[in-house]
Amino acid sequence: MYRLPLTLRSGDGAPLYEQLYSSILGQIRAGELPAGTRLPGKRSLSQQLSVGVNTVDTAYQMLVAEGYLEARPRSGFFVLETVETVAPGGAAAVSIPEEASPPPCRFDLSTGSVDTELFPFRTWGRIQKELLYDAPELLSHGPRQGERVLRQAVGEYLATYRGVVCSPEQIVVGAGTEYLLGLVAHLLQGQTAAVENPGYQRLSTILQNNGVVCRFVDIDSAGLSLEALERSGAELCCVTPSHHFPTAVTMPAGRRSQLLRWARERPGRYIIEDDYDAEFRFDTRPLPSLQGMGGQLGPVIYLSTFSKSLAPSIRVACMVLPPELLERYRETYGSYANTVSRFEQQTLYRFMEGGYFTRHLSRMRSAYKARMERLCEALSTTLGPENIHLQGRHTGLHLLLTLKTGLSEEEMVRRAGEAGVGLQGLSAYYMEHRSTCPASTVILGYAALRDADIPPLAGVLREAWQRRDVGSR
Amino acid sequence: MYRLPLTLRSGDGAPLYEQLYSSILGQIRAGELPAGTRLPGKRSLSQQLSVGVNTVDTAYQMLVAEGYLEARPRSGFFVLETVETVAPGGAAAVSIPEEASPPPCRFDLSTGSVDTELFPFRTWGRIQKELLYDAPELLSHGPRQGERVLRQAVGEYLATYRGVVCSPEQIVVGAGTEYLLGLVAHLLQGQTAAVENPGYQRLSTILQNNGVVCRFVDIDSAGLSLEALERSGAELCCVTPSHHFPTAVTMPAGRRSQLLRWARERPGRYIIEDDYDAEFRFDTRPLPSLQGMGGQLGPVIYLSTFSKSLAPSIRVACMVLPPELLERYRETYGSYANTVSRFEQQTLYRFMEGGYFTRHLSRMRSAYKARMERLCEALSTTLGPENIHLQGRHTGLHLLLTLKTGLSEEEMVRRAGEAGVGLQGLSAYYMEHRSTCPASTVILGYAALRDADIPPLAGVLREAWQRRDVGSR
Repeated sequence: MYRLPLTLRSGDGAPLYEQLYSSILGQIRAGELPAGTRLPGKRSLSQQLSVGVNTVDTAYQMLVAEGYLEARPRSGFFVLETVETVAPGGAAAVSIPEEASPPPCRFDLSTGSVDTELFPFRTWGRIQKELLYDAPELLSHGPRQGERVLRQAVGEYLATYRGVVCSPEQIVVGAGTEYLLGLVAHLLQGQTAAVENPGYQRLSTILQNNGVVCRFVDIDSAGLSLEALERSGAELCCVTPSHHFPTAVTMPAGRRSQLLRWARERPGRYIIEDDYDAEFRFDTRPLPSLQGMGGQLGPVIYLSTFSKSLAPSIRVACMVLPPELLERYRETYGSYANTVSRFEQQTLYRFMEGGYFTRHLSRMRSAYKARMERLCEALSTTLGPENIHLQGRHTGLHLLLTLKTGLSEEEMVRRAGEAGVGLQGLSAYYMEHRSTCPASTVILGYAALRDADIPPLAGVLREAWQRRDVGSR
Repeated sequence: MYRLPLTLRSGDGAPLYEQLYSSILGQIRAGELPAGTRLPGKRSLSQQLSVGVNTVDTAYQMLVAEGYLEARPRSGFFVLETVETVAPGGAAAVSIPEEASPPPCRFDLSTGSVDTELFPFRTWGRIQKELLYDAPELLSHGPRQGERVLRQAVGEYLATYRGVVCSPEQIVVGAGTEYLLGLVAHLLQGQTAAVENPGYQRLSTILQNNGVVCRFVDIDSAGLSLEALERSGAELCCVTPSHHFPTAVTMPAGRRSQLLRWARERPGRYIIEDDYDAEFRFDTRPLPSLQGMGGQLGPVIYLSTFSKSLAPSIRVACMVLPPELLERYRETYGSYANTVSRFEQQTLYRFMEGGYFTRHLSRMRSAYKARMERLCEALSTTLGPENIHLQGRHTGLHLLLTLKTGLSEEEMVRRAGEAGVGLQGLSAYYMEHRSTCPASTVILGYAALRDADIPPLAGVLREAWQRRDVGSR
């Protein structure tokens, strides 16, 4: 039996049993109490330390529970063999860099942002609060594909505004388009997808991450070309027909029907339609979706997000699956819980059901349209109408600006960045054939731009792009 | 030129341009306006229909935008070729069954539920509201791995209560353990994982869905056995050391250090530690995590969830990654947005930071402990202490009940179900070697059980399990 060299301090933070536990554990770990050592009896140790027997018993039982001691009936507590494996310096000592993020800039013209001031704080907050008090049952697990009422409401909304034809059972709600696309891509792994070039790189990253081979197919003035699609040998095609990202091309009906016919020619062919910002068509109403054109049983996997219509940080997106894919989805993911908080789903449901969503959309649409017009006006006036060409005014939340003064895209982006304007060149969206990219064209995402920033932004861009290139690298 | 047989009705819901658009589209789709047809000039049609020229122009422009018409300069509008592809009966007509869900029952003893009445509605609601008004910037995109302050707070919490050793940069926040495990499993695809048998089937489903091969390894009284692990040839092992699911075994320190040593023997070996309910240890404090034992740079992928400590429907979980896996994680998922609403992340952060979380946990712990004791007492009294054996009283939110009257597990589950008690037999958690499952043992998840339901539940179980089996199948 070992006599423990211990002193415990009462009234000093940690309870006595905790101090005792830590001391003994420290000695075991330091090798001072080798395996097989018999510890003092509870009574004798309690006398030695002037603490209660219960205190000793608690500490011993903790060490038994953790596997450091063994209690042998009628003979006492013995140290068990453990292999010390904690790396030297157990505490977090190694500094690991934080994930990379773009540096902040004075004018952020990246795409993917929205104007957070347009968010319906009051209504959203009220509904959120009502739900928390009225509907505690929402704390339990909900339906895996998403709240039934939300899918119903989303289905009706998509039918009315996007011409989507589906039943609520075909809708899956999830924490973002990336998540949902990842799930469906996984079901299609090993297949080949034709992906628009230029395009939204994140789509192809997700497809590739999930084992789908991507063939980048150049788009023409009507979007993805059928000849190129046929040549690619793909079984899948991934398109943004309402508003091609980033060139703003709208795919006309003829091309759409060709795509659908292509998909129907062979079983297992699917079209992934990313309808990421159809809410923001400013002149005429948005084109109905390809999904609706293909019909309820058609070959289109339809993706829609609330990132732009509400906020990117409220992670709600949905997808519509063709019935046979839905079946495979349920087989594979039947045990996965839904990824969106039920409160958030129900808040969105009540927001849609109360008519707030369509009102909110029309408010956003007016605000964005006015901003876009103000930006176009300011750019034209400040840079000179003869020096620029603007595209993408009818829809979406970004413009394409082509500078006709001979400055290269690279130089435009670099100089803008130096002047505090964060933007990307069109060529950044080319996964292949970058040399075919129209010259001197940049993308201006204006959704998060303050109105008051528009005149200074235009001034800064003129300054940056029109100065003689003196002293730059 | 074609003379359109049209009549428009003013004051009748749809705007005139919309009616005109629909009529022409209908005729194109019906083949009444074949490709190449020249439509009437805008002025002549406007006179014919007694509407403004603008009305006709809007309708024509919509059809141009959608690719049904082509505007040829100085010659007018012509119908383009489109292939009609909408499936017969375009509207959602096909009925698709809703995803399957278990039938409701009078007493739900499934695991995975929590007592929603313990949820801190008031504090949570207040923080949520404050954030909505105070922090509109949370509507924009946040850090991909999760809010920095939340990762900091979670890191401190896990260090204090679970002995986890990591820096906040190693933590990834995501919409549920399933989502996070899926991401990490995907990084390990093609590898083989040893998975506890019996165990939590969803873990192996997720691993398999992501291309990890699962070998089911029988556990012994100390959890996953090292010999079996070595025999399995696995490079990964997936364990619940704090509280094995569902047998409630706690893995002792000796076994833990063996596991860590196993992982250290070869580069690329990892231990996935699912610490799913360590918050609910009732007698002594919970065992420190295997992750902490392995150290900050150790081989443990640590998973923790707020499903049980807050609510299953609030989708927040987190994982701690070893540095080299973190690097691969960032390479692969560097462009993925976080899946948890920033508001929810910040609400949780403020909830933890304000000290509410630890108070909430201790409140839950007391309530669950009292409920568990009440349930044990009622079962023992009602079924007879000599007839039952109860395990798992020290930790977690479920008990194992073994009936010693000779009734089979299958019969126990069936009769309980008929009497309105939803529960599962232990054998349901065996992926292999079901014959080695202890006889007549069922799992009682008591977290969602009302106190008032305990006496009638015990009575119903006695009635169901002790009656002579007359007239049953």
